[in-house]
Amino acid sequence: MFSITVRDHIMVAHSFRGEVFGPAQRLHGATFVVDATFRRAELDADNIVVDIGLATTELGAVLAALNYRNLDDEPAFEGVNTSTEFLAKHIADTLAERVHAGALGEGARGLAGIAVTLHESHVASAGYEREL
Amino acid sequence: MFSITVRDHIMVAHSFRGEVFGPAQRLHGATFVVDATFRRAELDADNIVVDIGLATTELGAVLAALNYRNLDDEPAFEGVNTSTEFLAKHIADTLAERVHAGALGEGARGLAGIAVTLHESHVASAGYEREL
Amino acid sequence: MFSITVRDHIMVAHSFRGEVFGPAQRLHGATFVVDATFRRAELDADNIVVDIGLATTELGAVLAALNYRNLDDEPAFEGVNTSTEFLAKHIADTLAERVHAGALGEGARGLAGIAVTLHESHVASAGYEREL
Amino acid sequence: MFSITVRDHIMVAHSFRGEVFGPAQRLHGATFVVDATFRRAELDADNIVVDIGLATTELGAVLAALNYRNLDDEPAFEGVNTSTEFLAKHIADTLAERVHAGALGEGARGLAGIAVTLHESHVASAGYEREL
Amino acid sequence: MFSITVRDHIMVAHSFRGEVFGPAQRLHGATFVVDATFRRAELDADNIVVDIGLATTELGAVLAALNYRNLDDEPAFEGVNTSTEFLAKHIADTLAERVHAGALGEGARGLAGIAVTLHESHVASAGYEREL
Amino acid sequence: MFSITVRDHIMVAHSFRGEVFGPAQRLHGATFVVDATFRRAELDADNIVVDIGLATTELGAVLAALNYRNLDDEPAFEGVNTSTEFLAKHIADTLAERVHAGALGEGARGLAGIAVTLHESHVASAGYEREL
Repeated sequence: MFSITVRDHIMVAHSFRGEVFGPAQRLHGATFVVDATFRRAELDADNIVVDIGLATTELGAVLAALNYRNLDDEPAFEGVNTSTEFLAKHIADTLAERVHAGALGEGARGLAGIAVTLHESHVASAGYEREL
Repeated sequence: MFSITVRDHIMVAHSFRGEVFGPAQRLHGATFVVDATFRRAELDADNIVVDIGLATTELGAVLAALNYRNLDDEPAFEGVNTSTEFLAKHIADTLAERVHAGALGEGARGLAGIAVTLHESHVASAGYEREL
Repeated sequence: MFSITVRDHIMVAHSFRGEVFGPAQRLHGATFVVDATFRRAELDADNIVVDIGLATTELGAVLAALNYRNLDDEPAFEGVNTSTEFLAKHIADTLAERVHAGALGEGARGLAGIAVTLHESHVASAGYEREL
Repeated sequence: MFSITVRDHIMVAHSFRGEVFGPAQRLHGATFVVDATFRRAELDADNIVVDIGLATTELGAVLAALNYRNLDDEPAFEGVNTSTEFLAKHIADTLAERVHAGALGEGARGLAGIAVTLHESHVASAGYEREL
Repeated sequence: MFSITVRDHIMVAHSFRGEVFGPAQRLHGATFVVDATFRRAELDADNIVVDIGLATTELGAVLAALNYRNLDDEPAFEGVNTSTEFLAKHIADTLAERVHAGALGEGARGLAGIAVTLHESHVASAGYEREL
Repeated sequence: MFSITVRDHIMVAHSFRGEVFGPAQRLHGATFVVDATFRRAELDADNIVVDIGLATTELGAVLAALNYRNLDDEPAFEGVNTSTEFLAKHIADTLAERVHAGALGEGARGLAGIAVTLHESHVASAGYEREL
């Protein structure tokens, strides 16, 4: 199995509901350094998993919709705890939609799966992986 | 599949038996930067894999029993080569016991697996992963 | 010249005023991974710059006053752009006060300077350094 | 499942053929920081996955055949786009041959798989994993 | 003294002349992960060292003139060993010219110095720092 | 001012004397990832600070005398707290002797200074810098 991984980041505000979150129930924020991994069993005709430039551009586009925002105010996340693991799934699913829509090129239709990891600090991260 | 990973570290002395270890047969030491990953198929009611604060606390508690020690003198490791991969399994298994004992919360009972990676330097690491 | 550096982090929300900040004028957030460096010309009687455990505890205490907060709501920062470089100075100055108050031990009175670096992502950081 | 990972690097020149590569069609170069991971279900008699010193030496030997070269001039890669993902497979397959030839020791015959990741920058990497 | 640092990278081919370079006399290549640091004694009216977005854009522009090239073919470097330390100075000097030309904004005229570090691998880097 | 930095590591055991060290008074250990920086005002005839290969070899030689040892048993460190900052100075001073002895080449006689940083974990480091 082959893979490529590209990295970008977002800087967002949000708060959580639930006693388990302790002080993180207050409005705070995070930089999420985002690694998006694309997997496939065989390389395409150009000998690559997917165009790494296009993958970077698409990840940037997906993240731009979240960047420099207060996630508590985003209608798409109303009533949702935007935990790191939830955001990892949100980004992975949005990237999957982009792949299915052809945004990563015709060759990308051969992708087998996507994994997204969000590093929220030097000591904590969360991830989500799925098939395509 | 979702995951969260938390990081902590220990500083221990130990020695190895066996020619394969060369100079590491001498009493020496290591900082192990420890990444503990918790996996599950679906998020819990709070939209998380497990309480990341509790995961950090429990990893710290497991590591405290090893930290600042000469592992050659620990009765639990008598006659054992405390290799990086062995310690990864030891920590993963101890965390698994904590999960089963409820120390990571009721929600943690839904965890599917644990993976532990020990970084022994900037150029070497070892890991162990298991189901729960 | 000797130095020791300890690392911790905070997760905060804030917004900026000024066209130069572009989309960062919106309420957003950041994880700041904070490196605090303590310098001195000669080691103390214990052969150290400062007790690294105490340095870690004090950095943690200084950061606790900022962590999981919306800095826009903090009276101490009213009308202030809490830029990464401003926060580096704020943390360095607060640590300097702690040193002068004896919180880092009597030996720490021999410290020559403090430097604080805040990493706001994998591609950007800011710092401030001062004498003691 | 256990694993160990060792790291080394190469510095090579190459160019790509295909419009998808844009400016990377020009002769350029890369540092690839290479992580080689060896997996097995059970530890050997010495309580290790494989001799980490031998794994480091063998990875170094495999990389020496690529290091400080223009890959466009290597007969083995004639007419091939030496993409990061292709090189990951090349290195993994060469390591697998070394394992089968006994170069990593008799114990290494119990290895279950190999994974190789090449970090081409702080924001991009590619990998390949296979069974043994 | 305040500072901000931004990071980007280039991927280039080159070769060296001189026995000291050993195998690096062959045409090879490198990824240089470039950290550009801007220093000043006091913050500007916006409470920053320099617009971090503009600093990132300008660093990108300076690097674009080098990226995906064989430095041996660049007229500007004819007969020059494009060592990592030489490139650090080249980038720092070019950034200094951009500052003097006003490309980093009027506020940037208060900058005191620039430092550039090029990481050529996980185990080696080179840098150059200068006043403005 | 120019600089180059090379990285290597050691894995040692030791213990500390003094209440300030708390549990680190017990025999324990550490991996020290060591960065050695060489500075000079002007590049040499080959356009470099110092031969990076030779610098790596010499750092390795200096570290080999410490690696895989219990520092409590080393005659050179009898009665000494081998703190991270002390070891940084020891390594810097030994490298300085090597430079003066010509081990880093004739060109290295133009070096202005050496700085050594020891990373003892992902959250703590110590350093020492000196002139040559």
